[in-house]
Amino acid sequence: MRFAKGHGTENDFVILLDPDGSGTLTAGLAVRLCDRRTGIGGDGVLQAVRTAALEGARGMGAEPEWFMDYRNADGSLAEMCGNGIRVFARYLAEHDLAEGPEFSVETRGGPRRVTLEPGGDITVDMGHVSVLGCGSAEVGGAAFEGLQISVGNPHLACVVDAPLASFDLSRPPGLDPGQFPEGANVELVLLTGPGTLAMRVHERGSGETRSCGTGAVAAAAAAATATGTDDSAWTVTVPGGQLTVTLEAVGARLTGPAVIVAEGELNDAWLAAGGFRTQGARLA
Amino acid sequence: MRFAKGHGTENDFVILLDPDGSGTLTAGLAVRLCDRRTGIGGDGVLQAVRTAALEGARGMGAEPEWFMDYRNADGSLAEMCGNGIRVFARYLAEHDLAEGPEFSVETRGGPRRVTLEPGGDITVDMGHVSVLGCGSAEVGGAAFEGLQISVGNPHLACVVDAPLASFDLSRPPGLDPGQFPEGANVELVLLTGPGTLAMRVHERGSGETRSCGTGAVAAAAAAATATGTDDSAWTVTVPGGQLTVTLEAVGARLTGPAVIVAEGELNDAWLAAGGFRTQGARLA
Repeated sequence: MRFAKGHGTENDFVILLDPDGSGTLTAGLAVRLCDRRTGIGGDGVLQAVRTAALEGARGMGAEPEWFMDYRNADGSLAEMCGNGIRVFARYLAEHDLAEGPEFSVETRGGPRRVTLEPGGDITVDMGHVSVLGCGSAEVGGAAFEGLQISVGNPHLACVVDAPLASFDLSRPPGLDPGQFPEGANVELVLLTGPGTLAMRVHERGSGETRSCGTGAVAAAAAAATATGTDDSAWTVTVPGGQLTVTLEAVGARLTGPAVIVAEGELNDAWLAAGGFRTQGARLA
Repeated sequence: MRFAKGHGTENDFVILLDPDGSGTLTAGLAVRLCDRRTGIGGDGVLQAVRTAALEGARGMGAEPEWFMDYRNADGSLAEMCGNGIRVFARYLAEHDLAEGPEFSVETRGGPRRVTLEPGGDITVDMGHVSVLGCGSAEVGGAAFEGLQISVGNPHLACVVDAPLASFDLSRPPGLDPGQFPEGANVELVLLTGPGTLAMRVHERGSGETRSCGTGAVAAAAAAATATGTDDSAWTVTVPGGQLTVTLEAVGARLTGPAVIVAEGELNDAWLAAGGFRTQGARLA
């Protein structure tokens, strides 16, 4: 079974190539692949399946040609991943599996347009951004006010005025279950200049991470609201690197790096030990 | 550049194939490869170089045919690694690069005999074991007596009588610099039955790890001394799995699993971004 490993601003992924949609990417395989000692290691798994192979394929043409199926390291499915889809697009482009500087990728959250920028970065359409109102979180014993923002998934983005290193995100921020019945990612946002911000993020279910694509979008939206400026392009520094968020009337775009580290074949004996058939690639 | 990833009792390694000894494995590349988010991820890197390609090669024949060069995740060189050499041997055997159920591997600590066992485990000659005397360590505010043992590297193996889960190894154990001028790995050893023990280990420079080959040997030697038995074979349960240590008059042998997870090619752009030439494989 072919695999690759890559990362976008240190959010890292295992990529599986399964053009025929053989149903390889079970929750169990995702957990096994993402284990950083007994597997390849990653925050999640991106599986590349041709849309023509999907059940109920629309058969309406060539676009989008590829479906990005995504599972988190705990095996759970997710609709979209702003850092992951860049790595996914890089992989397709490096293998001539997608044409042109612009193409669409199907996701569980709907089709997303990606653009390979001349400088090497990749831009992805992040869909609609909704500022829903005010909210608060408790971080390290103190309460912080912020904005509830939906970027497909729920966020609380709090503009702060203390150095980001001073906050303790080792434990999940306290949220009001009435405000966030399904939890939320919490961003701590420091405005660092016109159109620039730095952030740290605690992702529900994952803890503090090096980067979060939807979190960067939420942080930019909160910064735009806080400053009341017309700035639409925000340079966002995350612990794992730098992203650019472009806020538009109808949504947001996210631009950033995407790196393929290595690729190859999963070992047959390793797959078999996990209960996976190595031929046919269906779960035994 | 070809690579593989594998692990032995969850001590995990990146393997590089460099038969011609092109000098690829610099400290910088080891650090970059072992980064768990921006590289492949591992506790160390094992590089396979033909002994015939080494400077000053003895040219005395075919054995050992391969030199295992080893660097830790921080880039430092190490003489030997009891878990790593099993993974190294598995890689050679899977690629028909070594013949027979028994062969030798050259290391910075000298040649080591490895045996592919019929059941799938691999046994490695761990060299001489020296019980040097008594010593003590402070763990979680309490002092523990143990044995100073050299297995090429320094250990303090402490037989304890409390559940292993009750100890705090999140910080380095306190050692007397007079006893251990170069530090030591500290093993907490619980005797669990005749010829069986469980252990946890804190490795100098690495913190608590899932497994340590030389630590398992030191633990078995301490258990044999503590029980005063003639048991020579010890089943050692580590957090990452199970090992067998056979104590002999002249040294010790270590038997355990070795798993190859995947293999393939490092990405040229990733190597180039780290300053590595992708053709010729010498550092630019």
